[in-house]
Amino acid sequence: MVLEIVPNLVNNLWVVVAALLVFIMTIAVGFLEIGELGKHYSRALVKTIIITVSAIFIMAIIGFNTAFAPTVYGVIGNPFYGPGLLLGEFSSNAQGLLTGVWWSMGPKYFNTGLATGSYFLFEAAFASVTFALVSVIVLKKVKMKALALFSIAYFILIWNLPAAWIWNPTGWLYLMGMRDFAGGLVVHAAAGAAGLAIVLEIWLEEKKRGFKQSPKVGIKLNKSWLALGILLLWMGWFGFNPGSVLAFNSSALTVVLTTFLAASSAAVSTMGFKWLKDRAKPDIAYGVNGILMGLIIITPLAGFVSPGSAIVLGLIGGPLFLAAERYFSKAKGFTDPVGLFPGHLVGGIFGVLMIAFFTQHSFAAASGNGILPNGLLFGGGLSALHQLGIEAFGIIVVFAAVFLLSFAFIWLIAKCIGGITDSAYYKEIKSAKAGHRN
Amino acid sequence: MVLEIVPNLVNNLWVVVAALLVFIMTIAVGFLEIGELGKHYSRALVKTIIITVSAIFIMAIIGFNTAFAPTVYGVIGNPFYGPGLLLGEFSSNAQGLLTGVWWSMGPKYFNTGLATGSYFLFEAAFASVTFALVSVIVLKKVKMKALALFSIAYFILIWNLPAAWIWNPTGWLYLMGMRDFAGGLVVHAAAGAAGLAIVLEIWLEEKKRGFKQSPKVGIKLNKSWLALGILLLWMGWFGFNPGSVLAFNSSALTVVLTTFLAASSAAVSTMGFKWLKDRAKPDIAYGVNGILMGLIIITPLAGFVSPGSAIVLGLIGGPLFLAAERYFSKAKGFTDPVGLFPGHLVGGIFGVLMIAFFTQHSFAAASGNGILPNGLLFGGGLSALHQLGIEAFGIIVVFAAVFLLSFAFIWLIAKCIGGITDSAYYKEIKSAKAGHRN
Amino acid sequence: MVLEIVPNLVNNLWVVVAALLVFIMTIAVGFLEIGELGKHYSRALVKTIIITVSAIFIMAIIGFNTAFAPTVYGVIGNPFYGPGLLLGEFSSNAQGLLTGVWWSMGPKYFNTGLATGSYFLFEAAFASVTFALVSVIVLKKVKMKALALFSIAYFILIWNLPAAWIWNPTGWLYLMGMRDFAGGLVVHAAAGAAGLAIVLEIWLEEKKRGFKQSPKVGIKLNKSWLALGILLLWMGWFGFNPGSVLAFNSSALTVVLTTFLAASSAAVSTMGFKWLKDRAKPDIAYGVNGILMGLIIITPLAGFVSPGSAIVLGLIGGPLFLAAERYFSKAKGFTDPVGLFPGHLVGGIFGVLMIAFFTQHSFAAASGNGILPNGLLFGGGLSALHQLGIEAFGIIVVFAAVFLLSFAFIWLIAKCIGGITDSAYYKEIKSAKAGHRN
Repeated sequence: MVLEIVPNLVNNLWVVVAALLVFIMTIAVGFLEIGELGKHYSRALVKTIIITVSAIFIMAIIGFNTAFAPTVYGVIGNPFYGPGLLLGEFSSNAQGLLTGVWWSMGPKYFNTGLATGSYFLFEAAFASVTFALVSVIVLKKVKMKALALFSIAYFILIWNLPAAWIWNPTGWLYLMGMRDFAGGLVVHAAAGAAGLAIVLEIWLEEKKRGFKQSPKVGIKLNKSWLALGILLLWMGWFGFNPGSVLAFNSSALTVVLTTFLAASSAAVSTMGFKWLKDRAKPDIAYGVNGILMGLIIITPLAGFVSPGSAIVLGLIGGPLFLAAERYFSKAKGFTDPVGLFPGHLVGGIFGVLMIAFFTQHSFAAASGNGILPNGLLFGGGLSALHQLGIEAFGIIVVFAAVFLLSFAFIWLIAKCIGGITDSAYYKEIKSAKAGHRN
Repeated sequence: MVLEIVPNLVNNLWVVVAALLVFIMTIAVGFLEIGELGKHYSRALVKTIIITVSAIFIMAIIGFNTAFAPTVYGVIGNPFYGPGLLLGEFSSNAQGLLTGVWWSMGPKYFNTGLATGSYFLFEAAFASVTFALVSVIVLKKVKMKALALFSIAYFILIWNLPAAWIWNPTGWLYLMGMRDFAGGLVVHAAAGAAGLAIVLEIWLEEKKRGFKQSPKVGIKLNKSWLALGILLLWMGWFGFNPGSVLAFNSSALTVVLTTFLAASSAAVSTMGFKWLKDRAKPDIAYGVNGILMGLIIITPLAGFVSPGSAIVLGLIGGPLFLAAERYFSKAKGFTDPVGLFPGHLVGGIFGVLMIAFFTQHSFAAASGNGILPNGLLFGGGLSALHQLGIEAFGIIVVFAAVFLLSFAFIWLIAKCIGGITDSAYYKEIKSAKAGHRN
Repeated sequence: MVLEIVPNLVNNLWVVVAALLVFIMTIAVGFLEIGELGKHYSRALVKTIIITVSAIFIMAIIGFNTAFAPTVYGVIGNPFYGPGLLLGEFSSNAQGLLTGVWWSMGPKYFNTGLATGSYFLFEAAFASVTFALVSVIVLKKVKMKALALFSIAYFILIWNLPAAWIWNPTGWLYLMGMRDFAGGLVVHAAAGAAGLAIVLEIWLEEKKRGFKQSPKVGIKLNKSWLALGILLLWMGWFGFNPGSVLAFNSSALTVVLTTFLAASSAAVSTMGFKWLKDRAKPDIAYGVNGILMGLIIITPLAGFVSPGSAIVLGLIGGPLFLAAERYFSKAKGFTDPVGLFPGHLVGGIFGVLMIAFFTQHSFAAASGNGILPNGLLFGGGLSALHQLGIEAFGIIVVFAAVFLLSFAFIWLIAKCIGGITDSAYYKEIKSAKAGHRN
């Protein structure tokens, strides 16, 4: 006798609505970009639309499998796993579509009863927004064709490996005990690592073009689109973090809280510290960056901590962002006006490390991560130190893997299409030498 | 003993949230219009706001009944059916408000346990967005008064008849076996037919004004609003198609998938074929039109097909749109910059016909349409051919009815108010002869 | 033996999604402001972002308690109530987070099984949007610092007292029988009262600056942002009113209906009466104000009335708004371009009074307010008159309390920081005397 596994209605409802909210975020990143760089940078919009459709398209064909199918030796999901390949192709009996749930959502693993449809859409939206974050670094400098080619590798392999390692219940880092709730590492820091690989290639090409410093791109606020961008991103994070419980229960409600509290307190803290430092009036750019920093920091541990900790983490986010922004703004080799590195890279890594400090076992257990011990600040002692080691190890491995893979692919693409940078842009820059650089 | 029929909570939650998403779409069409025609065409915004409020207002008074009340001989819903007339007026015992479910949602028919509130809002939002699609054809040419008068007929009769025939379980086409999942015909192709009636009247009046060709209105992209428009429309379609299951179950999750896959693959295909044909770089206009084409095509059969088929249908959408756009752009008698005819009319009809090719019985049964046989591509044979005949017959009947009714009403309105076209616009056009035409 | 109280999943899902929608509204008010005053008034955006984050931050620390914790003598919520103070701080056993429900949502009181997380987010979003409404009155005239300081008092005391009195089941007005469904008084009229206190202080300072009339700020439509603003606000109201049932049931579905019907019919009525009066073509400003007026009026009784009554109330809203707008526009002592007083103050008070006219007991009982008798129009007779007295008494008490508290705090702030008005603005005004005033 075979017991049929039935999808859990409320969990699916929660996750599929969360998926819709995360889906919004990619184009919201486009609005954030024109909000910070001005409407003349409308390229951000076609870019984020293309990213949205390619993410769904490529993930549906094969990328969902490489990340979330049963893994081959814990390293990569089986690309040919039937129910995930083209999402079951034309089969109406495909597991999880009409008759069951995705394998890892069954009772043997996460036991949340999610159908393939909900889980796929949720994760495809995650892949999409991760790449949108990477792409804030290309500005007008990189050819669209290069980005398009890179996106294929990105959605089949670069995004998928860390996901397979950490979020797949048969992944090697997951089995080692590494946890990253909603992607401080898998999304934010990994986006930063891929971004670094791209700016390295840009810089190598810029040096060949005779630049001694990477041309800087300045901020040019378009406040309405910036406000809309952050509103949509914050709404998206309501799906991003609380949806990552992959179920609707008390833990999901707690994650809503920790997410919103960290965002608010980080915004208060960023504007406050900016004022303390420079007597700068609260302005929209620091408000927005503060909200983002809070959301990024809480992402990897939103399901593991108490509301009180979320507020503390948010408050730390302000000075951390200001310091990181100051540090990265001095870089000669790249320009990062939208803040990929001080925000997503630094905030993501910081948040993952904080797992070993702020986790409270009862919260972690409620979100399905009962393996996590209390953090150092909650009496975790040696177990917490051990967890800190695992998290740090995971950060190093994933950062290195994503950076190297990304650089290898972007370098290869550069070889094939004669460089990834766009000559038109640099001509424009040079001819405008006397005038403004933008 | 009377058994009380209790609303199904999760189904109502799903459909009322879907209704909210569909509700967004009408104003989103306004953003799409200013996105394609430029901000000077701000008239689109007041137009879509007025459409939104009139749709809800008129449907609440009587239009919900003419479409969804028990029909008179299968032709039209009983306008005086108590629970629908003014939504039960002042009665607190109205069926479906506090004590039960809308008649067709009870066990005798669709058996989804929807309350009047959810179902009304969902369908009023459908009527609203359908008329918003029709209205993209009026541009600056038509008097607002003409459109307002037409909307009354539209929300009482023109939209409602096809809905009563195909979506009402006592409608004559429904009983004949015609199916149209979420409105490839009832919404998109019908909007096209009504639009054709309006452009015919416009053209007749333009000829009287001495024009030998209908003044063309050019595209003038406003990329941020275009991006916002398509984002909101796509979000809306998450309600439009998956909500059309009228229940939350495995089928609804599959419909989320087929909808998103068709949109993505059609966008990839449209931009890809445009590049193959003209070596045109991917741009936002073709990205947006591709997404829309995929969404339109999948609409009539989103609940009947597998994810694999959705991708195939999306991929066909690209060249189909490009060919149709080329064909309609040559028309002398009208101008259709936003693409009502190549998109909604052609895409809608194509999708309905594809029911007879791509349907898989098990998917159709899961969405409550067990009467549908497998399509021709899935071994449906003669049954599929029979279904093809029914669908084609339905298309012809609905197209003819909507076109004739629309023309009759718009002609009558023209008689009453001295023409539907706005002299101010044509003076402006003529005086700008030497300059740009817009 | 202790029976554990388990959160109700569907109710929490409904309210937390509603909370997300209400959360959107604060920034949507910013879009509405730039929609009515023009893009140069981008200050509205940073203002509404700051309001959003401070509301969540301050409510999390203490404001949720002062409004919703068990009250001290019915007057104010106990600020030190454990589960609400910092939302349970670092405790993982905090009531309502992982193990239970907020006290007033348990079986002894409202019995909806809401967890602290959902309820907090919902109410923090309410506080936020209320203050956003207050803040439409500051324009460029008031220093941001003054507003920031005022917000602290606002989120700890001024917003919280009326909420504690009317929405807290141990509040003195609640116990007296006062009802205000979703905040016609607690939100809209109270925002108007606080706004009046601020304009009084502005006017006192303007007189000192030598003005004989408060400088008027004119309307300068930015139609796209206005359309987006009203779309987001209407979406938000889907959470605001239907979420205020604090449960998902037939009543919540009815509230969706009454809310949408009142909005639509008030918009139709406002544009219609404007046309009757001035032969003015329907325009976006009156469309938007009509929608808002309908939404405001229905807010205090959306859960008590039938769909028919909602339409009637909406239809009354049109002429009421037009008359109030005319009245307030003549004021010498303030300028109110966005319409805080004719809309929120007048509409809110009117709606609360209408409780005694339009309530139908069965609807009120279904939304958990079984204490309410039928209204005067539904045979309520003496009981309805008694209710009218209670509602009027509540209006007077809350209006007086909010006005006096607000004036006291704003006056104190003015003393501390040398006036709340911004000299830069008035210099600008004076130097532009010959030119336009804006």
